[in-house]
Amino acid sequence: MTSKAEAPAASSPAGEPIQCDVMILGSGLAGSITGAILARQGAKVALVDAGHHPRFSVGESQNPQLVEWLHILAVRYDVPEIKYLLDIKAVTKNLGAHHGRKQSFGFVSHRPGREPDPREATMFIIPKMLTEATHMHRQDTDAFYLAVAAKYGCVVRQDWRATDIDFDDDGVTVTSAGGEVFRAKYLIDASGFRSPLAQKFSLREQPSRLKHHARSMFTHYVGIKPYDEVCNYPADLLPPQESPFHGGTLHHVIERGWFWIIPFNNHPDSRNPLCSVGLTFDERTYPKPKDMTPDQEFNKYLDMYPAIKRQFEGASRVREWVSTDDRIQYSSKQTVGPRWCLMSHAAGFVDPLYSRGLSNTFEVVDALCWRVLDALRDNDFSVERFEYVERLEQGLLDYNDKIVNASYIAFDHFRLWNAVFRVWACFTTPATMRLVKARQDWLLEGKNDDVFKRMENAPYPGLWWPDSHAFKYLLDTTHETCERYEAGEIDGDKAADLVFEAIRNCESVNTPFGWKGPEDLRYFRASTPTMIKFLWWCSTQAPGEMRDLGRSFVSGTVRQALRGKKLT
Amino acid sequence: MTSKAEAPAASSPAGEPIQCDVMILGSGLAGSITGAILARQGAKVALVDAGHHPRFSVGESQNPQLVEWLHILAVRYDVPEIKYLLDIKAVTKNLGAHHGRKQSFGFVSHRPGREPDPREATMFIIPKMLTEATHMHRQDTDAFYLAVAAKYGCVVRQDWRATDIDFDDDGVTVTSAGGEVFRAKYLIDASGFRSPLAQKFSLREQPSRLKHHARSMFTHYVGIKPYDEVCNYPADLLPPQESPFHGGTLHHVIERGWFWIIPFNNHPDSRNPLCSVGLTFDERTYPKPKDMTPDQEFNKYLDMYPAIKRQFEGASRVREWVSTDDRIQYSSKQTVGPRWCLMSHAAGFVDPLYSRGLSNTFEVVDALCWRVLDALRDNDFSVERFEYVERLEQGLLDYNDKIVNASYIAFDHFRLWNAVFRVWACFTTPATMRLVKARQDWLLEGKNDDVFKRMENAPYPGLWWPDSHAFKYLLDTTHETCERYEAGEIDGDKAADLVFEAIRNCESVNTPFGWKGPEDLRYFRASTPTMIKFLWWCSTQAPGEMRDLGRSFVSGTVRQALRGKKLT
Repeated sequence: MTSKAEAPAASSPAGEPIQCDVMILGSGLAGSITGAILARQGAKVALVDAGHHPRFSVGESQNPQLVEWLHILAVRYDVPEIKYLLDIKAVTKNLGAHHGRKQSFGFVSHRPGREPDPREATMFIIPKMLTEATHMHRQDTDAFYLAVAAKYGCVVRQDWRATDIDFDDDGVTVTSAGGEVFRAKYLIDASGFRSPLAQKFSLREQPSRLKHHARSMFTHYVGIKPYDEVCNYPADLLPPQESPFHGGTLHHVIERGWFWIIPFNNHPDSRNPLCSVGLTFDERTYPKPKDMTPDQEFNKYLDMYPAIKRQFEGASRVREWVSTDDRIQYSSKQTVGPRWCLMSHAAGFVDPLYSRGLSNTFEVVDALCWRVLDALRDNDFSVERFEYVERLEQGLLDYNDKIVNASYIAFDHFRLWNAVFRVWACFTTPATMRLVKARQDWLLEGKNDDVFKRMENAPYPGLWWPDSHAFKYLLDTTHETCERYEAGEIDGDKAADLVFEAIRNCESVNTPFGWKGPEDLRYFRASTPTMIKFLWWCSTQAPGEMRDLGRSFVSGTVRQALRGKKLT
Repeated sequence: MTSKAEAPAASSPAGEPIQCDVMILGSGLAGSITGAILARQGAKVALVDAGHHPRFSVGESQNPQLVEWLHILAVRYDVPEIKYLLDIKAVTKNLGAHHGRKQSFGFVSHRPGREPDPREATMFIIPKMLTEATHMHRQDTDAFYLAVAAKYGCVVRQDWRATDIDFDDDGVTVTSAGGEVFRAKYLIDASGFRSPLAQKFSLREQPSRLKHHARSMFTHYVGIKPYDEVCNYPADLLPPQESPFHGGTLHHVIERGWFWIIPFNNHPDSRNPLCSVGLTFDERTYPKPKDMTPDQEFNKYLDMYPAIKRQFEGASRVREWVSTDDRIQYSSKQTVGPRWCLMSHAAGFVDPLYSRGLSNTFEVVDALCWRVLDALRDNDFSVERFEYVERLEQGLLDYNDKIVNASYIAFDHFRLWNAVFRVWACFTTPATMRLVKARQDWLLEGKNDDVFKRMENAPYPGLWWPDSHAFKYLLDTTHETCERYEAGEIDGDKAADLVFEAIRNCESVNTPFGWKGPEDLRYFRASTPTMIKFLWWCSTQAPGEMRDLGRSFVSGTVRQALRGKKLT
């Protein structure tokens, strides 16, 4: 099954379309890795893009689930180059010393005109046992995986804008502005907001069903100071020494908005002096001014938040701002159809908060690729085969919308925000363990692909632990409580009480990490001893679904160790 | 003198121009490194570009003189980051594993419809003792040095097109399309062919005085096979085993043109699968077809040269072609003026042959930077102070034009081309030694900047050994002989006889490397033993200028070794 694909003929006689199995619109990380996977598995793939590489892109911050999804893709579809993204050391070695480390998600709450209260900060430190994640310098990663796709046999076109897309019973014909014609059996739209397929079939919901609202502005800076050096917090209120704010992605939280600080220079091996900077905020609260440059607008906000401003003293911008005019949320009423799929960001987008964009994307890539390969083999592209992808994509948008919307509502009330933060964070570890366990089981069962297919039998596709009734209930309760607070039905303290109570009552929320502990626990660090305690708790004390996951995770790890197998 | 500059204010009240000392148009490698140098030395610098990074660029292949000029810039102006470009190991460590090695300049002659004659190939292998040079992945190097410039305090603007440039007695006012205004004491135009200053002052020679003619098309490929694997040469006619064709820059020579093959994946540490590919050829012999795509045109030439075509079997293009409509040669009648300088590629361009573009550029950067810093200190920007820069820039163009024009003329006659190749190659080593020696002397004389200033007291600025009367005579003779062959006054063998004789008669051409040896010596490898023999020859047997250079080079090296000083 696995071999380099025979590439489609790289050019064709005038008038004759170039034949391929799959055409992919968009050569971002999602399109290129999908192309590499399909070509590696023998499909003839054309990978086209309306723009060209190298290019600036955001979506730099990994999360633990992204790392695990990439690892599954690498082994399941036998594309070893995907493993280069799995941790900061591998990225640095294989793609170059341009990338930062993502040790933690840190959040600091700010109020206009005031120094932040050092007690109004939270942090989730990613367990080292799971991964040492990366701030990816996207111009490098994206150009690299385009070349990987080409290496596996994808025919690549850049500056190639699809102007005509015509489906018939046997396939799809795609024509560029320059008149080149491709003929494919299946079309994957891996572009983005300006998705040609979404336009052609009028798939966008107008307005979007998503509850969350925000616009965004972002760029790259050089010379950003670590927040740790300028925050002036008492030592006992700083994060653990081994995990400073600057060791990961820092979120400066303001009312209905947040700044991101994503350094690429926070790993000893990195030679990239840049730092990604963004501000994402509700456009209803902060309408875009007509009479200000992005610099002027951004500086206005820096002037409001003195501790953030100190990070920017002496820093220089090295790119122009990207500043969106409108709300950045969008969604689609349908994401799969006869011989086509709108993949991930072509289907919809919520917010960069919690760095879920890429992990959502690669969960979709995983679900889509085996179906496309099966459909090619069977020459059967019926929509029912792709129905799970539809449910998954819509679920990813809806659950992500809930946690993000709840968070933005909570941002102005620290106790409530601290509770919502815990709801998000407490399920990150089991959600990741679930993926590690699947990869363990796949190996233990002799690389049995059914292991991965079985994962799809979950009641809540798109939820980050899609099997967990308890988590679904907790998330729904949290979101409803935040909406009640937003509507003025209850005050912030009451809402916080309700969410903290829901966390304490949720049987799948673990105790060793401290999620159910006192409110002044704010920096959550799953050290290796804590992880071991957690696994012991999972296996012995945890109820129901959590015990099942914990036991099989531990037993898989032990069985592998006994067999002397390294988890690939 | 050396400190991070105080940056110009990053924005200014409406109507008030932003004040700076130096404004640089163009943030390619030349503009960014110039900006970094000037800011490091205390100047307030604005660095603007009409486009933005990251971006594709050619000019990937280093030559030994470039490496030495960069080394001089790094120590003379105290910008240690420039040293990252000095060899493939430093580049890989500091900028990432995206770069190839440039072990050699290899040349293979081809005739339409025929397998190449294995005896019609030459190679100059760069002495390891001098450097292990690099094929630079320019999208990375260029974006990196932009950030270095910003780090040292340059105010950076991208997508910033200068629409108004107004000089007066006290400075220059530059306005962008967006209405932003900078006010500077000196303007460096480090752009390129579309130089705003060349347009404003009508500086371009129409037509260019340059004799050489060519157009060019280029892109990046993945999957290019090493020529060594497809050439089918008898083992005894291959280059030395430790320096295969694929270990450096390979030139496939055709009548009045050449293909470049510049792999980025030819170093064990490299993770970049790409290869730069170009075809540069006389537009008078090969007019650009109106009815072909670049793919069709390039494939037409691959079809003519079967051995080259084999390198491309299974390879995929990962970028669109850049294919120039016209001749790529241009020149300017004036390159410095009151408070301005057209730097290097804003002043003129000859051809990528021999990879001289960047070494020429950084020789100009070196000559310009100390003058600008002195002018700022003295507040005296009189044109006479910059007169050497004018002579240097014009000389670089003219001498480069001579060797390139002679080469293109000789390409169709292997014996003549073999002789012209030797003329170019035989002076590469002394030209580089001269720069190493200056750096040694600078250190030995207590970092005395006069050492570098003294280098400018040479009769032939722009010649790669500007002190050498013998070389000047040999180059002129070679060019005249080739022009007589081109005019049909003499046949190719006669021309070859004359050039070989001129080489033998040139006292500064060394014997240990074999330049004066039999014609069937075609692969020139200066191994470390050969280099030692060469240095012994320089110090004892060589006449005049060569002995002076050799003796001081050797004595400097010995004195440094005795003092235990590492050459910085």
